[in-house]
Amino acid sequence: MKYISLLGASGSIGKQTLDVIDAHREKFRLIALSVGKNVEAAKQAIDQFQPELVAVADWQAFSALRAEYNGKAKIVAGDEGLIEVATHPKADMVVNAVVGSIGLVPTLKAIEAGKTIAIANKETLVTAGHIVTEAANKHDVALLPVDSEHSAIFQCLQGEQPKTIEKIILTASGGSFRDRTREQLRHVTVEEALRHPNWSMGAKITIDSATMMNKGLEVIEAHWLFQLPYEQIDVLLHRESIVHSLVQFHDSSIIAQLGTPDMRVPIQYALTYPDRLEVKGAKKLHLAEVGKLHFEAVDFDRYRCLQFAYEAGKKGGSLPTVLNAANEEAVAAFLSGRISFLMIEELIERALAQHTIIHQPTLDDIRAVDEETRRYIQSLLT
Amino acid sequence: MKYISLLGASGSIGKQTLDVIDAHREKFRLIALSVGKNVEAAKQAIDQFQPELVAVADWQAFSALRAEYNGKAKIVAGDEGLIEVATHPKADMVVNAVVGSIGLVPTLKAIEAGKTIAIANKETLVTAGHIVTEAANKHDVALLPVDSEHSAIFQCLQGEQPKTIEKIILTASGGSFRDRTREQLRHVTVEEALRHPNWSMGAKITIDSATMMNKGLEVIEAHWLFQLPYEQIDVLLHRESIVHSLVQFHDSSIIAQLGTPDMRVPIQYALTYPDRLEVKGAKKLHLAEVGKLHFEAVDFDRYRCLQFAYEAGKKGGSLPTVLNAANEEAVAAFLSGRISFLMIEELIERALAQHTIIHQPTLDDIRAVDEETRRYIQSLLT
Repeated sequence: MKYISLLGASGSIGKQTLDVIDAHREKFRLIALSVGKNVEAAKQAIDQFQPELVAVADWQAFSALRAEYNGKAKIVAGDEGLIEVATHPKADMVVNAVVGSIGLVPTLKAIEAGKTIAIANKETLVTAGHIVTEAANKHDVALLPVDSEHSAIFQCLQGEQPKTIEKIILTASGGSFRDRTREQLRHVTVEEALRHPNWSMGAKITIDSATMMNKGLEVIEAHWLFQLPYEQIDVLLHRESIVHSLVQFHDSSIIAQLGTPDMRVPIQYALTYPDRLEVKGAKKLHLAEVGKLHFEAVDFDRYRCLQFAYEAGKKGGSLPTVLNAANEEAVAAFLSGRISFLMIEELIERALAQHTIIHQPTLDDIRAVDEETRRYIQSLLT
Repeated sequence: MKYISLLGASGSIGKQTLDVIDAHREKFRLIALSVGKNVEAAKQAIDQFQPELVAVADWQAFSALRAEYNGKAKIVAGDEGLIEVATHPKADMVVNAVVGSIGLVPTLKAIEAGKTIAIANKETLVTAGHIVTEAANKHDVALLPVDSEHSAIFQCLQGEQPKTIEKIILTASGGSFRDRTREQLRHVTVEEALRHPNWSMGAKITIDSATMMNKGLEVIEAHWLFQLPYEQIDVLLHRESIVHSLVQFHDSSIIAQLGTPDMRVPIQYALTYPDRLEVKGAKKLHLAEVGKLHFEAVDFDRYRCLQFAYEAGKKGGSLPTVLNAANEEAVAAFLSGRISFLMIEELIERALAQHTIIHQPTLDDIRAVDEETRRYIQSLLT
């Protein structure tokens, strides 16, 4: 029986992680979980899984949940509560599925407590990859990817020696606007941007998919997860999202992982690794029915955010934190109708240009740079 | 340094094995080799690699080689000579690249001598898979595939547990006539049949590719190599021959191996397994340049030989030997202009129908059935 703490149980990845745990009760026990402020999701998870510990980030939501569910589970609040969930003594594995930089400190605490980490939280690796991977090394803790692309690469690397990797190739669907020219992007609406062709995801990540910042952040994550220089990380346009990523080896052989788009597959792989179990209800891929798979080179002028991500990753230090914070603020401004779609990349470019890089930033540096960057973007918006 | 004995040095796989050994002299030493009757190939290999032992199957060729090259290597002849090469005391690995059933006994002797086997010889597994795999198990010897499809599957299975395999999927180009109807196949010529779209191979295997008997034999090989029932072995039409094969696991994840068609890659993988080395001069696959990959279901009415192979494999015993022998005789008759293309499958069907299966056939049974079948086909041709 594997005991699991789940950070971020009410988001898209969190909910699907609960589905996976529910489908294999004989293998998994949800021992602790956290939500931000979604009391209903917390109540449902408590009723369904009887966790020992539940953290609620928002104090008002915490009070509401405790009033109703006290006694059914230990209910804790705030940043401290999140850390308590991340370090629950019975947990073997911590699934980090929170959105945003709030996941960083709990992940580090979980690593220090020797927990295996299943990581779905981009910010943790993008902003503090150097700190997280060093801690994982020091405490001999595995960082297992949950993202479909990184899981694909991780699967392709099983039984292989890292020194034989020529490059890893992340596939990208190209997002909602892949068939539009830059000129046509000038006047796209929020509604259009939210129509992703393959995956059903949250609003922020759907916009990140349309700008390909999502892929850019994944490139930085891949750099840390697989300890490879950016020159060995490629991106390939593949509109069907069926080949989830590939690895090319020195002998020119390529290993790829494929499947229908279903996040439960990579989530479950992280939970069962190195084993595999049936994913109940998953739609099997039939390539003869698909018929054709398409591949195209990425146009970096078309997808400027991807170019920014490579540049920020290569320069490193605090610059990926700027990239991420500026992107979050810019996407929020687009979603609220304050700026146009192409303005997202303009704002990010300006934020990157004005920043003086701090090398080997500490957690405090990262937090400060994050806040500075957000203030800077807001100052441009007013 | 890995010491290698190469059975069948003058054929297509044999020559490419020599290329691989030559490209990595720091890793490999060719200690012994065999040829059928190609004296020039033997001389060239002796000059290039200074093997200690050379076997020549044909007695006249043996005399010719010994007259000229005695002293440069120990030169031996006939079936005994082939076994001497297969069991050379210094050899770590035996590459079985001979064509036809002559490879069977030397392979068994090599297994008994504890050599790792790299197997490119279809007949060995198709006719005597039960004997060869039992011997390999008993002597704890690895059977490493050399065929591009089986190598692909073998690569996809690295780091995976056999019990998690849902099915393996062998890809097939469809051969020279994949775009023709059965009606159009009636009057095709030998010259047309020999134009394979992707691979440059010998005449026999190119015809086997056009009838898909090649894939049928591979299905039977896969059954033995990966110890899977035929229900877990699929064939998928894929005209580009870039995805070399795939494995689907219980969690619905698929792992595939891809590359440009270059036999040196799977040959070298067998030699370096579980490591990988650069394949000098190999053309890297660039999927963005390829653009599209196509997949289609196989029409078993269109490719009757594939259907025969599944049936012969499932019924087992001596029937795969009939399949193979009948096919060899029928293809030879087509290549010499004695029968039409579609007559190949007619002859095989008749041979299978008239045979009374021997279960768990011995080597003597296999030899007898092989000879009987060839006589039967010849009797139909006169």
